[in-house]
Amino acid sequence: VENTQIDIAEAEDFVRQHHAEHPDLGPVEARLAEVHAEIAATGTYRHTTAELTFGARVAWRNSSRCIGRLYWRSLKVRDQREVSAPADVAAECVEHLRVATNKGKIRPVITIFAPAEPGMPAPQILNEQIVRYAAYRGTDGGVLGDARNLALTELALKRGWQPPATRGPFDVLPLMVSCEGHEPALVDIPADAVLEVPLSHPELPWLGALGVKWHAVPAISNMRLRIGGIDYPSAPFNGWYMGTEIGARNLADHDRYDLLPYIAKRMGLDMSSEATLWRDRALIELNRAVLHSFGEAGVTITDHHTESQRFLTHLEKEEAAGRSCPADWSWIVPPVSGGLTPVYHRYYDSGELLPNFFPAAKTGCPVVH
Amino acid sequence: VENTQIDIAEAEDFVRQHHAEHPDLGPVEARLAEVHAEIAATGTYRHTTAELTFGARVAWRNSSRCIGRLYWRSLKVRDQREVSAPADVAAECVEHLRVATNKGKIRPVITIFAPAEPGMPAPQILNEQIVRYAAYRGTDGGVLGDARNLALTELALKRGWQPPATRGPFDVLPLMVSCEGHEPALVDIPADAVLEVPLSHPELPWLGALGVKWHAVPAISNMRLRIGGIDYPSAPFNGWYMGTEIGARNLADHDRYDLLPYIAKRMGLDMSSEATLWRDRALIELNRAVLHSFGEAGVTITDHHTESQRFLTHLEKEEAAGRSCPADWSWIVPPVSGGLTPVYHRYYDSGELLPNFFPAAKTGCPVVH
Ligand code: HEM
Ligand code: HEM
Repeated sequence: VENTQIDIAEAEDFVRQHHAEHPDLGPVEARLAEVHAEIAATGTYRHTTAELTFGARVAWRNSSRCIGRLYWRSLKVRDQREVSAPADVAAECVEHLRVATNKGKIRPVITIFAPAEPGMPAPQILNEQIVRYAAYRGTDGGVLGDARNLALTELALKRGWQPPATRGPFDVLPLMVSCEGHEPALVDIPADAVLEVPLSHPELPWLGALGVKWHAVPAISNMRLRIGGIDYPSAPFNGWYMGTEIGARNLADHDRYDLLPYIAKRMGLDMSSEATLWRDRALIELNRAVLHSFGEAGVTITDHHTESQRFLTHLEKEEAAGRSCPADWSWIVPPVSGGLTPVYHRYYDSGELLPNFFPAAKTGCPVVH
Repeated sequence: VENTQIDIAEAEDFVRQHHAEHPDLGPVEARLAEVHAEIAATGTYRHTTAELTFGARVAWRNSSRCIGRLYWRSLKVRDQREVSAPADVAAECVEHLRVATNKGKIRPVITIFAPAEPGMPAPQILNEQIVRYAAYRGTDGGVLGDARNLALTELALKRGWQPPATRGPFDVLPLMVSCEGHEPALVDIPADAVLEVPLSHPELPWLGALGVKWHAVPAISNMRLRIGGIDYPSAPFNGWYMGTEIGARNLADHDRYDLLPYIAKRMGLDMSSEATLWRDRALIELNRAVLHSFGEAGVTITDHHTESQRFLTHLEKEEAAGRSCPADWSWIVPPVSGGLTPVYHRYYDSGELLPNFFPAAKTGCPVVH
């Protein structure tokens, strides 16, 4: 084990920030003394429930790639720090999904598992999101399913996952969780925990017959949450979808479901040249289908115009609170009609604030990379 | 006059680069000696024709916001360094427009006027582009024309410009050129020098009846060209349009012609909520109209899909030549369907290379700002 003691300055900054933003907590000195003593004795310290909640919410507030930050205070924090055994982590991920789904009225939720402590290995979720669709390479080289998950699917198969008898384009992958010193887990997600929305279109009936669907809850499960010097490598979190994530990326990207050429053909568009903008037209109809279908199904979703407006409101509020709000233009501006959204026509603060979420460490998972 | 001598190091870097990229020019030492002597004697130096041509082309190559750089070697350079009197500058801008228009087969052209020399004031073109449409504020507070040009229009009127008897949304503004020590010029651009394309749509006949049009040649006229330490404050340049510049910005931006609500209404779209994506649908049809109309009129234009592909080709070529190619993601990714273009899915070198184009200095024009 390399790091035997956490970064005291970072811990102190965080505790001070927590108190500064919550004057009701009283003077910070007593808590600082506690934290110092605990670090001196154990190399680390344990967040209070209030600190954990505040830290997770501020990590969201500081996520410079996230356009959905207006509601950062509403994040529901599930404290599962006692859980580190892979099978238990997987089971709690399923529970996370149920709590977040809430019959379609999606709730932003984070579940925080055991931290990385000196000498204590922490669990690591290998799935990028809790719900991911499998990808199978056919004998012709084509891919059935979400090509983004080819490696994850391969790993699941190697570890003994039994795919459905008839493989389909939307087979939910099992959760895979590792933790040094434990048996790795491979746990199927019960079908009734995964709310899915079948796609249909307000005017194009054939689109509803394609059998395309998407899951309701985007829950990123492989990012590391860092609060006050402490790493939580397993801390899946979710909001609700912005339609373009599904309609302009997951179902449209060339290396994902790549549906646009097919949709354009079915729409009868002139595909003889790029200048007919057939891609753009198919894209808009696919995105209409996504927003329409989630709406019909009563599943929370947002469109990129509304969400851009909300983000500007968030910026105003942060400014009024005297805080910098770093934002990454290339992630904030939506992939559809960027120029139409007000977030396009301005610059943002840059910089990286703490607490925050970080990409899974390359070394965190000895199997996948 | 503050700067009495130009930056020798920058001059030397440029001359070395010119020779390095043109081995046929032979050893650089003789030319360097000449340049040093000339700077010592006069405080500046005069570019050879070859240097001026190379410098302007490389300034384009280094324009990190420009997606159209694949053809940088084809830039036609018009050497008008002897011209500094405002009326003559204006007349040569008109001539630039004719050369560039080429009956619709647009040619990338730059016209380079007198440089800024120690003690010698250079001309400054006040118009942002050679062709700009006037904007008039109505008594109801509304704007007729291109709201972006309200200040420029006001200035023209103050200087005695006679707008058409019946003011319209597409009245071409006069060229305004200043130069210390000279009478400022206000010169109408002859109608036959301004090729314009009336907008029509392949399927929506009413769109063709709206009387919307745009000019064929985008010629930026207020950026400063800097080559080897020498500033050319007046060096208008043009390429051809990428359709989105007209269809997604000039005609669509809220603070420009703001046509989308009107087009959506005429299309009969459901505008009751953002989630119907009526803005996006109107946007695509407007952009189809632009590409269709320029095509029908035989005027060179490019679409954002094709141009994105070309830009990646350019990057490959630059890499193969061992050169860095700085690019500004937020300018390179088009404002329509960004996620569909390959330029979206990667990062770029940053940094600012010389020669290059720079925004008009705030102090360059004592009148407008
Ligand atoms: C409540 C509704 C939410 C919406 C509409 C929303 C929207 C988005 C969108 C559109 C992206 C870009 C995704 C992409 O292009 O791949 C994003 C990224 C991100 N969001 Fe949110 N978000 C929400 C909630 C949350 C929550 C609850 C958290 C954390 C607690 C969060 C943290 C992040 C982070 C860390 C990223 C960057 C992910 C990465 O680097 O791959 N968001 N969000
Ligand atoms: C040949 C066809 C060309 C195409 C299709 C093209 C395309 C574009 C586009 C789409 C932009 C962004 C404009 C905006 O969003 O306002 C741009 C910016 C720019 N281009 Fe090009 N371009 C071309 C030729 C040229 C030429 C000939 C030059 C100079 C010699 C040039 C220099 C620049 C510069 C300096 C900018 C940034 C302008 C600013 O900062 O406002 N381009 N170009």
